Amino acid sequence: MPDAAPLLTDLAYGPHARHRLDVYAPPGAHGAPVLVFFHGGGFIRGDKAMRANVGVWGAAQGFVTVLANYRLAPECRWPSGPEDVVAVWQTVRAQVCDWGGDPDRIVLVGESAGAAHVAAATLMTRFQPPGWHTAGAALLSGPYNAGLEALAPVALVIEQPDVRNTAYFGDDPGLWHQASIVDQVDAAPFPLLIAAAERDLRQMQVQAGELFARLVTRHGFAPELHWWAGHDHFTPGASLGSDDPTVGEPLAAFVRRAAGA
Amino acid sequence: MPDAAPLLTDLAYGPHARHRLDVYAPPGAHGAPVLVFFHGGGFIRGDKAMRANVGVWGAAQGFVTVLANYRLAPECRWPSGPEDVVAVWQTVRAQVCDWGGDPDRIVLVGESAGAAHVAAATLMTRFQPPGWHTAGAALLSGPYNAGLEALAPVALVIEQPDVRNTAYFGDDPGLWHQASIVDQVDAAPFPLLIAAAERDLRQMQVQAGELFARLVTRHGFAPELHWWAGHDHFTPGASLGSDDPTVGEPLAAFVRRAAGA
Repeated sequence: MPDAAPLLTDLAYGPHARHRLDVYAPPGAHGAPVLVFFHGGGFIRGDKAMRANVGVWGAAQGFVTVLANYRLAPECRWPSGPEDVVAVWQTVRAQVCDWGGDPDRIVLVGESAGAAHVAAATLMTRFQPPGWHTAGAALLSGPYNAGLEALAPVALVIEQPDVRNTAYFGDDPGLWHQASIVDQVDAAPFPLLIAAAERDLRQMQVQAGELFARLVTRHGFAPELHWWAGHDHFTPGASLGSDDPTVGEPLAAFVRRAAGA
Repeated sequence: MPDAAPLLTDLAYGPHARHRLDVYAPPGAHGAPVLVFFHGGGFIRGDKAMRANVGVWGAAQGFVTVLANYRLAPECRWPSGPEDVVAVWQTVRAQVCDWGGDPDRIVLVGESAGAAHVAAATLMTRFQPPGWHTAGAALLSGPYNAGLEALAPVALVIEQPDVRNTAYFGDDPGLWHQASIVDQVDAAPFPLLIAAAERDLRQMQVQAGELFARLVTRHGFAPELHWWAGHDHFTPGASLGSDDPTVGEPLAAFVRRAAGA
């Protein structure tokens, strides 16, 4: 695949070793929509390299596509995730013209823990710097209610001991509610896609439903809601660029619509 | 199946032709747990006869099992459902000793629209008469947020025109939020099971998740949460008494636990 080569690799967007991003661009792109993707990994692992397929796929769709790493727990805790999403956005916003993208048409996409980070950055204005603007966001199979996970780990089938949440939200589950994104939404509505998979982890299905319901009934959002048929927690991102159009077609259509493309 | 015959059929619990219930009892029952089941049908149809299997199954599990009809829309609108659940409960409470059941161990179970009716009756104290007491409730694939359904019918894949909700909640979707159970919970916590199916209708998955999250984080409940593998919206109730233990085993275990049996 000749188009698979990234335009840039490991561009630094901050001082930490995890502050690195890769850029994939359609040949001859100019003013293209921009898709910025944040991988999953339960707050404690994961790497943009495991989703290189998303870069190749996004560029083939006509999007300047950025894959970003972010700091991981336990070294870095909440709210390092949304802080890094915002730092990525600032770098992309400043430089994406040079890569063939339109800085006013940036769509943020996150998967699992990456979806939680994108949700916090886009829905909670306290993380947003002056001039913050995104054309839209897509949240794939993320957790958005840390307080709920603290109160109902058994019902939600969360592995015990809960190494992921403890690493990122800290040792006292009684304080995790302070990081519950769903309770701290204060952003004005923007184009949003919320998804879970038909065979996803139960905690992700519950929190996708809760976030969707909350945004619609309390905050005036009109999100797209997708429940990917035949997929589990780990397959949606991996399917991008494959023969399976279940995730890729609606996600690309959403990015185009959100970007006004 | 000699045990399949009901002890009583079409016992009247109110003045309407739909105020009828059937009773199935284990042979020689005395002080048995009591399971009261409300069928589905989108507020506008359905009959206890279509879930006779639940009566046979429940009696075989050792439960005095009551199958109740309730008034239907558009003839009867919200809150006729919870009113009828309460009326059934009053009749069962008064007479179940004679059928071999313990009036202090009544568990209410509803499926789809029946789950909405059971949820309203058990979670909203305004419907509850003096002396109200249930040992527990199980909510299978129900809708609990009419206001959300009014605001997001497309995202929730609700058939248009929305004949079920319009028939039951009225012609003005702008008023349906007044019937949103999830926003009007004021009951003290009790044993509760909330379930949706892996291939359920999307609106039911979303609302199961939202109700679960709300009850846990705001009202001190600790519900069981089940997501029936391999099932769709219509199969869980039908599977009771079949060779498929997916729904029956955990549901029977819940009823026993809630009833202290």
